[in-house]
Amino acid sequence: MNILIVGVGLIGGSFSLALQHRKELHFGGYDQDSEALAKASSLGVVDQAFQDMEEGVRWADLIVLAIPVRAIKRVLPQVMSLVREDQIVVDFGSTKKTICDAVDKLPNRSQFVAAHPIAGTEHSGPEAAFGALYQDKNLILCDTDRTENVKLQVFEELAMAAGFYLTKMSAAEHDQHLAYISHLSHVTSYVLSNTVLEKEKDGEVILDLAGSGFESTVRLAKSSPTMWSSIFLENKEMVLRGIQAYKQELEKLEAMIETDDETEIAHYLEEGRVIRKILR
Amino acid sequence: MNILIVGVGLIGGSFSLALQHRKELHFGGYDQDSEALAKASSLGVVDQAFQDMEEGVRWADLIVLAIPVRAIKRVLPQVMSLVREDQIVVDFGSTKKTICDAVDKLPNRSQFVAAHPIAGTEHSGPEAAFGALYQDKNLILCDTDRTENVKLQVFEELAMAAGFYLTKMSAAEHDQHLAYISHLSHVTSYVLSNTVLEKEKDGEVILDLAGSGFESTVRLAKSSPTMWSSIFLENKEMVLRGIQAYKQELEKLEAMIETDDETEIAHYLEEGRVIRKILR
Repeated sequence: MNILIVGVGLIGGSFSLALQHRKELHFGGYDQDSEALAKASSLGVVDQAFQDMEEGVRWADLIVLAIPVRAIKRVLPQVMSLVREDQIVVDFGSTKKTICDAVDKLPNRSQFVAAHPIAGTEHSGPEAAFGALYQDKNLILCDTDRTENVKLQVFEELAMAAGFYLTKMSAAEHDQHLAYISHLSHVTSYVLSNTVLEKEKDGEVILDLAGSGFESTVRLAKSSPTMWSSIFLENKEMVLRGIQAYKQELEKLEAMIETDDETEIAHYLEEGRVIRKILR
Repeated sequence: MNILIVGVGLIGGSFSLALQHRKELHFGGYDQDSEALAKASSLGVVDQAFQDMEEGVRWADLIVLAIPVRAIKRVLPQVMSLVREDQIVVDFGSTKKTICDAVDKLPNRSQFVAAHPIAGTEHSGPEAAFGALYQDKNLILCDTDRTENVKLQVFEELAMAAGFYLTKMSAAEHDQHLAYISHLSHVTSYVLSNTVLEKEKDGEVILDLAGSGFESTVRLAKSSPTMWSSIFLENKEMVLRGIQAYKQELEKLEAMIETDDETEIAHYLEEGRVIRKILR
């Protein structure tokens, strides 16, 4: 089976690496960034590099789009117009609604699987990819009733072989949950980083005074700006709702501090601390 | 040398454990919470438990206050009124200005050292204490010109033996820097946690959808509410200024998302990402 990875970075590259023990699978790579493609090839992340995406699509039985979500929205209909009846197309974007909308009316919609791997690191590029990234991680599959059963099963089997367990929900539900649980924490990390960098011009001071706490809280600000600007816009409505809710919570705590209400503050923090029972 | 630890939790207990290889040191413990004190004693965090603080203070050559900052402000003048000329009193509070103000006019001010260990975990209590916590960590000493030289040196030598390196600055500077670099990241973690818990009532959903990113961003929300409500109020003015600056930054990003300005967003995230050059 030939699998074409479009976007040979952390996400796409790790899928390929996670399946390299399956000798019957052959991995091709395509990337707009020819340097990344060459690197992926020389690192053995893919077996074969395609300079032309169309050629790669023709070669493949299954095509995985692992590029920023805005690019998926543009490239996916293009790929769908090229594929034969037997081919499967999967996207690994972090938002799902606008991507599903982009193929909603296509005659071959049933050849498409909308997927989101809940895994990643703050690093990016083919050199960040590693085969264990998806071990015991959640792969969310959206609107699976729109995908042809046999094709869905073929992909599900591969996904589980890569280490994933599978969860299913609608694209709209997905985007709503992820806005709060994932997108919002990226917003708050980037904003915290900018606030501190604006105030503390001297990196040495930050380094000396930052405990592991600050480090952990801003870790996500190291993530790829192209990927995340794209996500914020593709899930715009939900992300803005999340920011609104967050601002309201922040203002609650701010008001308690302003009025010196120690009991109320401790109570508020105690409520937030409930998260430790969920994430151990 | 007898060292009394007032507050045998993560911070005080770890100082004792970090120095237990020095056989000439004897550690006594006092804690308002008699259960914590018994636990510290049975875990060997301290050699000796005092039911009465005054008795412990009389016994000690050096007294370390490792309790919430508001409690330090109350207990410190009390301890200072009890000590003989040869004794040294140290506080390990996370804010320094109001604590230094509380002893500013005392005749024996020069026996006091204001210190802040930049180390910790999200856990608390004597069972969270461990001897390696302070290894290569920064201990900030404030307003050291107000401390008698010989006493300061005695304490500095112990602090370095516990693993610390030392930094010196004024209490006012300390509180300003820490408001941004430490206190603000606790604010944003607790607020993020409350926002998500408010929206997602089902812990299972959070657990399934949370990548390591969310986990890292809310980690600090697991911290001790008593400790942190106290810090927010003792550094109230600076923390409120930090929240103001943070809200402004958040609204900048919000406006860019509202107006669909992908280039501006990517630029904003790129700026925040500079943090990766400081915290590697």
